[in-house]
Amino acid sequence: MGGNSFGTLFTALTFGESHGPAVGCVVDGCPAGVPLDTETIRRDLARRRPGAGGPVSARREDDEPEILSGVFRGKTLGTPIAITVRNGGARSSDYDALKDVYRPGHADWTWEAKYGVRDYRGGGRSSGRETVGRVAAGAVARAFLSGFGIGIRAWTGEAAGFTAPGPEHESFNLDEAERNALRMPHRETAERALLEIENLRGAGDSAGGVVACRVSALPPGLGEPVFEKLDALIAHAMLSIGAAKGVEFGAGFSAASLKGSQMNDRPVPAPAETALPGGTLPPGVPAIGFAENRAGGVLGGLSTGMPLEFRVVFKPPPSIARAQETRDRAGGPRIIEIPGRHDICVCPRAVPVVEAMAALVLADLLLQSRVSR
Amino acid sequence: MGGNSFGTLFTALTFGESHGPAVGCVVDGCPAGVPLDTETIRRDLARRRPGAGGPVSARREDDEPEILSGVFRGKTLGTPIAITVRNGGARSSDYDALKDVYRPGHADWTWEAKYGVRDYRGGGRSSGRETVGRVAAGAVARAFLSGFGIGIRAWTGEAAGFTAPGPEHESFNLDEAERNALRMPHRETAERALLEIENLRGAGDSAGGVVACRVSALPPGLGEPVFEKLDALIAHAMLSIGAAKGVEFGAGFSAASLKGSQMNDRPVPAPAETALPGGTLPPGVPAIGFAENRAGGVLGGLSTGMPLEFRVVFKPPPSIARAQETRDRAGGPRIIEIPGRHDICVCPRAVPVVEAMAALVLADLLLQSRVSR
Amino acid sequence: MGGNSFGTLFTALTFGESHGPAVGCVVDGCPAGVPLDTETIRRDLARRRPGAGGPVSARREDDEPEILSGVFRGKTLGTPIAITVRNGGARSSDYDALKDVYRPGHADWTWEAKYGVRDYRGGGRSSGRETVGRVAAGAVARAFLSGFGIGIRAWTGEAAGFTAPGPEHESFNLDEAERNALRMPHRETAERALLEIENLRGAGDSAGGVVACRVSALPPGLGEPVFEKLDALIAHAMLSIGAAKGVEFGAGFSAASLKGSQMNDRPVPAPAETALPGGTLPPGVPAIGFAENRAGGVLGGLSTGMPLEFRVVFKPPPSIARAQETRDRAGGPRIIEIPGRHDICVCPRAVPVVEAMAALVLADLLLQSRVSR
Amino acid sequence: MGGNSFGTLFTALTFGESHGPAVGCVVDGCPAGVPLDTETIRRDLARRRPGAGGPVSARREDDEPEILSGVFRGKTLGTPIAITVRNGGARSSDYDALKDVYRPGHADWTWEAKYGVRDYRGGGRSSGRETVGRVAAGAVARAFLSGFGIGIRAWTGEAAGFTAPGPEHESFNLDEAERNALRMPHRETAERALLEIENLRGAGDSAGGVVACRVSALPPGLGEPVFEKLDALIAHAMLSIGAAKGVEFGAGFSAASLKGSQMNDRPVPAPAETALPGGTLPPGVPAIGFAENRAGGVLGGLSTGMPLEFRVVFKPPPSIARAQETRDRAGGPRIIEIPGRHDICVCPRAVPVVEAMAALVLADLLLQSRVSR
Repeated sequence: MGGNSFGTLFTALTFGESHGPAVGCVVDGCPAGVPLDTETIRRDLARRRPGAGGPVSARREDDEPEILSGVFRGKTLGTPIAITVRNGGARSSDYDALKDVYRPGHADWTWEAKYGVRDYRGGGRSSGRETVGRVAAGAVARAFLSGFGIGIRAWTGEAAGFTAPGPEHESFNLDEAERNALRMPHRETAERALLEIENLRGAGDSAGGVVACRVSALPPGLGEPVFEKLDALIAHAMLSIGAAKGVEFGAGFSAASLKGSQMNDRPVPAPAETALPGGTLPPGVPAIGFAENRAGGVLGGLSTGMPLEFRVVFKPPPSIARAQETRDRAGGPRIIEIPGRHDICVCPRAVPVVEAMAALVLADLLLQSRVSR
Repeated sequence: MGGNSFGTLFTALTFGESHGPAVGCVVDGCPAGVPLDTETIRRDLARRRPGAGGPVSARREDDEPEILSGVFRGKTLGTPIAITVRNGGARSSDYDALKDVYRPGHADWTWEAKYGVRDYRGGGRSSGRETVGRVAAGAVARAFLSGFGIGIRAWTGEAAGFTAPGPEHESFNLDEAERNALRMPHRETAERALLEIENLRGAGDSAGGVVACRVSALPPGLGEPVFEKLDALIAHAMLSIGAAKGVEFGAGFSAASLKGSQMNDRPVPAPAETALPGGTLPPGVPAIGFAENRAGGVLGGLSTGMPLEFRVVFKPPPSIARAQETRDRAGGPRIIEIPGRHDICVCPRAVPVVEAMAALVLADLLLQSRVSR
Repeated sequence: MGGNSFGTLFTALTFGESHGPAVGCVVDGCPAGVPLDTETIRRDLARRRPGAGGPVSARREDDEPEILSGVFRGKTLGTPIAITVRNGGARSSDYDALKDVYRPGHADWTWEAKYGVRDYRGGGRSSGRETVGRVAAGAVARAFLSGFGIGIRAWTGEAAGFTAPGPEHESFNLDEAERNALRMPHRETAERALLEIENLRGAGDSAGGVVACRVSALPPGLGEPVFEKLDALIAHAMLSIGAAKGVEFGAGFSAASLKGSQMNDRPVPAPAETALPGGTLPPGVPAIGFAENRAGGVLGGLSTGMPLEFRVVFKPPPSIARAQETRDRAGGPRIIEIPGRHDICVCPRAVPVVEAMAALVLADLLLQSRVSR
Repeated sequence: MGGNSFGTLFTALTFGESHGPAVGCVVDGCPAGVPLDTETIRRDLARRRPGAGGPVSARREDDEPEILSGVFRGKTLGTPIAITVRNGGARSSDYDALKDVYRPGHADWTWEAKYGVRDYRGGGRSSGRETVGRVAAGAVARAFLSGFGIGIRAWTGEAAGFTAPGPEHESFNLDEAERNALRMPHRETAERALLEIENLRGAGDSAGGVVACRVSALPPGLGEPVFEKLDALIAHAMLSIGAAKGVEFGAGFSAASLKGSQMNDRPVPAPAETALPGGTLPPGVPAIGFAENRAGGVLGGLSTGMPLEFRVVFKPPPSIARAQETRDRAGGPRIIEIPGRHDICVCPRAVPVVEAMAALVLADLLLQSRVSR
C-alpha cells in the first residue's frame, strides 16, 4: 500500500498537487447503502474556508466536488467512491521566484532530498491543499458513521497564546465555535486571540495553536490490539496532517505528574448519555462507564464508551512575510520574504481536517469491530 | 493485516499472553546478511529489567530468547525471524481473585467488551509483558540499522513530577541514564525522583512520567507522504505502547504559543555531525542542515537529517495497592486492592520499548526509501 | 486495503461503474522521474479497441484519458497518479429491461447477494469497462518497466476451438498478432477462427479462448517467498480479470503427465538474450540460464531470468443473443435474449488487460526486489 | 506486509527453515471463541504423512505442534495464535554435498540470485517442509469455518498419467481417497497409478499430477471485487504452493473451446443442498442456484453458493536419483544424482496443503463479507 492510502477496511486514498489539474480522493471499502450526495461533500469542504476577516488566507478556493463513481441513486454501491475537486484559478507563475530557494519550515528541501524533484508551485503535494482530499473522504466516513449516531466535533482550543475554556467549563460553547473566525468555543477568548493575530499579520508573523476534538456515542471495544489501537491510529492520523507537532489523549502530558490514584477513572454504571445500544456488548458483560474520563475514552487501546477526547498541536504556519535567512538550490545564503496572503493561524482550517481524519479512523475501526468475535 | 503486525516492508508481529506458554515475535522483511545472534536479543531484553531498588517490579523475569528461524551461521537469511521467550514461573492462580472484577485504569472491561472473553491472568495480552516481543523485534531492527550508523537513545525525561535537564543543557548525561534506576540523564534529579517514588510505594500509589528519545545519523527524506510520514508512524508506534497518553516532536505542544519567526528552523550548511553519506542526496540537491531543530528533525513528514527528537508521556501504572472503588462482572460495586509487586513508574522499563518501536519504524522507512526514486 | 487496490509498493486502485460519470485509476508508489504523458496512456487504451470486423463489440468507446496528478513537466513526481476516462454516450435506459432479471453467466445475482444492490446499467463495476482503469494503470507500470528493458507481449493463443502455433514454432509471428482482429500470431489460424466467430455471431452465440503472455528481459530473483511468489501474484492478477477461468505457467497442466527428468530444465550458462545486467546478481553467484524453460521462467516462485511464460483461459462472453432460461428478482422463471452488440470472443480485448496486469505485478516486484538484501 | 503473510483480516504468517530449530505459523485475526486444541492441529499435520508404501518419502517427520499463544481454556482469545513444530532428527551434514551445486528444478539458484545467500540444508525455506506452517494455520481456519458448516475436501485427480473419475461420475468416492496412498477417489485408478509410480522409483524418476478441491456449503457473495475476487485469491494461494504450475476453476481450460450457450449455467431455484442459511441474503434477493456449475461456484469473482471447484497441477518433484547435468557455484558443469528418499509424486501430500490454503482464503473472505453492507 502506498503512502497515500489510509485505513485497512474503510480506506481513503488522496491525490493531487496544489497546482495540478485537480485534487481528490478515492474511498474504498465504504459499505453499500449509505446515503451520500455531492451536497454532503460540498458542505464539509466549505468548512475548510471560514469567514473573511479571520486568521486564514483570503484566497478564494472554489471547491466544487464531483463524485465520479460508487454512488447510484443517492446511495453508495459498496464500490470505490472517487471524488475530484478541480484546482481553478491558481497562477503557478507566482511561484517561479520560489523555484530555487528553500522556504524555512517547509518541506521544500526534504522533498527534494527524497524524490530528487518537487512541484515547486505552492508546495505541490505538501501543500495544505492536499487536505481537500482528506475532507472529502472524511465526509464519506461521516455519512457512514452518522448512521450509528456517532458525532465528531473539533474546535480551536488554543491560538496565539490564548487558551479557551475546555468542555469542563460552563462557558464552553461549541455553537459559538462555528460563529467566530477562530472556531473557538468562547467568544471573548476568540476576540482577544483574533486581535493578537491581526498584530502578527501586521508584523509579518504567524501563530501556533491547538485543536481539540471530542467524539461522542462511540461504542466500546473499538481498536485492534496491539498495534492498531484506537489511540495509536488517531495519533497516526493526526500527525499525518501537515503542521501537527503532537497529540495527547485525556489527561495527556499532564499525566506525567499525576499519581495512579488520581489518573485511574472510577468504573461506574454506564451513564445514560454514553452509547450502549443493545447488542453491542457480548453476553455477560455489564454496561460500565468511567467516571472522570481522564483516560480520554480509551483504555488498553480500546474505546471505553466514554467520549474520545484528544488534542493536537499545530505549529505556526511557516510562510511569513518577515525576512528570513535561508539557502538556495546552490547551497548559498538567501534572504526570503514570502509574498502572498497566507494563513496566520492554521487552527480554524485544521478543525474540519481533524474531524475528517478522526472519522476515517473510526469508520475503519467500526468495520473492523465486526470481525473480532 | 491483523492488529498484531507493525510495518509495511520491515514488519514485526508479536504474540503471546503474559501467562501463556510463551511470548515472542516474528520479523518478516529484514534483508539477508544482517549479523544477528541470540546474545543481541538477550541484551536488549535485559534492558527491560533495570536494577533492583528502582521503581519497577522486582518480579524476576528470565527472558531467555530463542531464535527459531531466519538466521543461518550468524546472519539473517532474508526469511522470517521467529523469536520466542518462555513465560516461566508465573503462578496464574494468583490472579483468580481478579477473574470477575475490573481493575481501574486497566483494559479488563474494554477487552471483554470487544472480545467477550479475556485471559484474566495478569492482563493476558494487554499486559506489559507483551512488550517482550516488541523489544526482541526491535533488537533485530537495531541490528539492521546499526549497519547504517543510525543510533537510537531514549531516557526518562520526567518522573513523579521531577524533570531532568534536556539535551540542550550541559548537565545532560546519557551515560548517567544507564546507571540510575530511573534511567534519568541527571543523577540529582533521579535521586530526588526515586525518593518520591519510594514515598508513593509506601502510600500504595504510582507515578507518571515522560520518556524522551533522540535518533542520530538519520538520512534525510525518510517518510512516505502523505499518510506514512515519519512523525505519523512514530506517533502510531508510541501510542501503541500500553500506558502512553501522548507524543510530541521537537517544540511539540510549546509550539502552540510560538510565532512562525520563532518556530522556523534556519536552513544552514549541513553540520558535520549529521548523516549525509555520499550518494544519499539526489544529484543537484545541496547538503542542508536546520540550525535550531525546533522541528525535531522532521519537516513535511520527512526526516531532515537533523536528530529526530520526540517525547512520550506515560500515565502512572494503574495497578496500585491503595483501595479503589470499581465494578465486578455482575455490574455491582467492589473495593479492590491490587496485591503484588508492581511498577511504581513505568518509564525506565519503557525506555527500551520506545527505542525498539522507533527502530521498527526507521527500519521500515529505510527500506521504503529505497523505492521512491 | 480495499478490494479495488492491487500491489504492495507499486499500487493501482481502479474505480468506476460502466455507466457512471467516469472510470479510472490511481497509481501510488511509482518512483519519481519516470517519463509519462497522456499519449502513452491513450495508446494503451486504444489497444482495448481492435479494428472493426473482428470478434469484439463495435460499440465506440472514446477513451480519452486525463492525468489529474502526479506528473509534472512530463515526468512522474513520486506522488499518486490519478487518471480518469469519462463514460461518454452510453444510454443507460437501454438497460432498464435488465433491471429485474439475472443474466446467465453474469455477476448480476452474486453481486446483489453480496451488496444488496447493484448498478444494473451494463453491469456497473462488474462490466468489462472496469478494465479501462487497469489498462491505464498498466501503462504507467509499463512506462516504469521500459526503463529496465523489460518487455511484455500477450496474444490470442486459442479462440473458438482454433489453436495458433506457439512461440516454439517457426510460423509464430507476434507482428502478425497486432494485424488481425483476433490478435493471433498466425494469420491462417486467425482467419479460420474469425470465420467460425462470424458463424457464432449469426447463431447468437459466443466463443472462449486463451491469451498467452511472454515477458522478456526479466531480472532473476523477482518474487517474495513464500506467499508473494512471482507466479502466485501473476495468477492472482490474471484471475482477477472478469472472464478468466484458469492460468498455467510453462508446461502448465501438461506437467501432470511429465516425469521429473522431462520437467527439470537443464542449468546452462546464461544465454546472451536473457537479462543479466551487471550488478543484478549478488557477488559469487554465477549467471545461469535454464535450457528448456518448461518452468516458464519461474522456480521456487522467483524469476529465473528466462522468459516468463503463462497462459490464461477466458470463458465465452455470457451475453448472447440466443434465448436462455433464467430467473428474475421475484425468483420466477424468465426467458432472456440479450440485445445489443456484444463481444463474441473476449481474447483480443483481453490481450492488453493481461499485459497491463502483468506489468503491475512486475513493477511491484521490481520495487520489492530493492529491499531484500 | 512481508511475503510470508497471507490474508487481510484472517492472516497467517509462516516461518522456519527445513533444518533450522523449528517451523510454524502465527494466525492473527481469528475471532475469539473458536474451539481449538493441539489435537486439531496434530490431526491435520498427520495428513501430510500418508501411509507407508506410497509415493511420498518414508522419512519420518514427528510433527508435534505446540500452541504458544492465543488459546485459553480450549477457545481462541482473538489474539495471535502462534504454533511451532520442532525440526527433530534431520542431519544437515547430509546436505554438505549440495552446498555448491544447483539442483535442477529447485529454487537453489534463484534463491541465491535474490538473497545472495541460502540455507542449503534441504532447501531451507523453499523446502516442502515450509508447508507445515500452512497446514497448522489452515487447521485454525478450518476450525473457524466448521462453525459455519463449510466443508473443504481435496483429492488427487491425476497422477503419473492416470486420471481418476471426477465428482460427476458414480464411481467417484471421496472416502476411498483417504484409504489409498495416492489419495485418489477411485481404487482401481489409484492402484494402476501406484504401480507406475513404483516403476518410476526404480528408474530414479518422478511423476506430476493434479489435485482437485471442492468446497461445499459456501455462502454466496464471498469475494471482494475487483482484485480480491474469490477465484483470484484461490489462484494466488494455490500458486504459492511449491510445485504448483497452474490452476483452473469449473470448466477451466476446456472453456476455451466452449460456446457461451454451453458455458452459461442456468439460474434455477437454489437446490436444497446449497448453503442458504436464513439471513444470508439481503432483503428482496431470491435464493438462486446454478444448474450445471460449469462456473465452478464463482461468478464475477463472487461465490454463487454452488460448490467451489478447482484443480491445481503439480509438477513432478525435481529431486530425482537419475543423473542430471547441472551447474555449480563456479558456473562450471556438474553431474548430480540426488541421494535420499524423496517423494515420487507430491499429490497426496499436497492434498492437505491445498485444503489448508483454501481454508485460509475462505476464512479471510468470510470475515471480509461481514463489512460489505
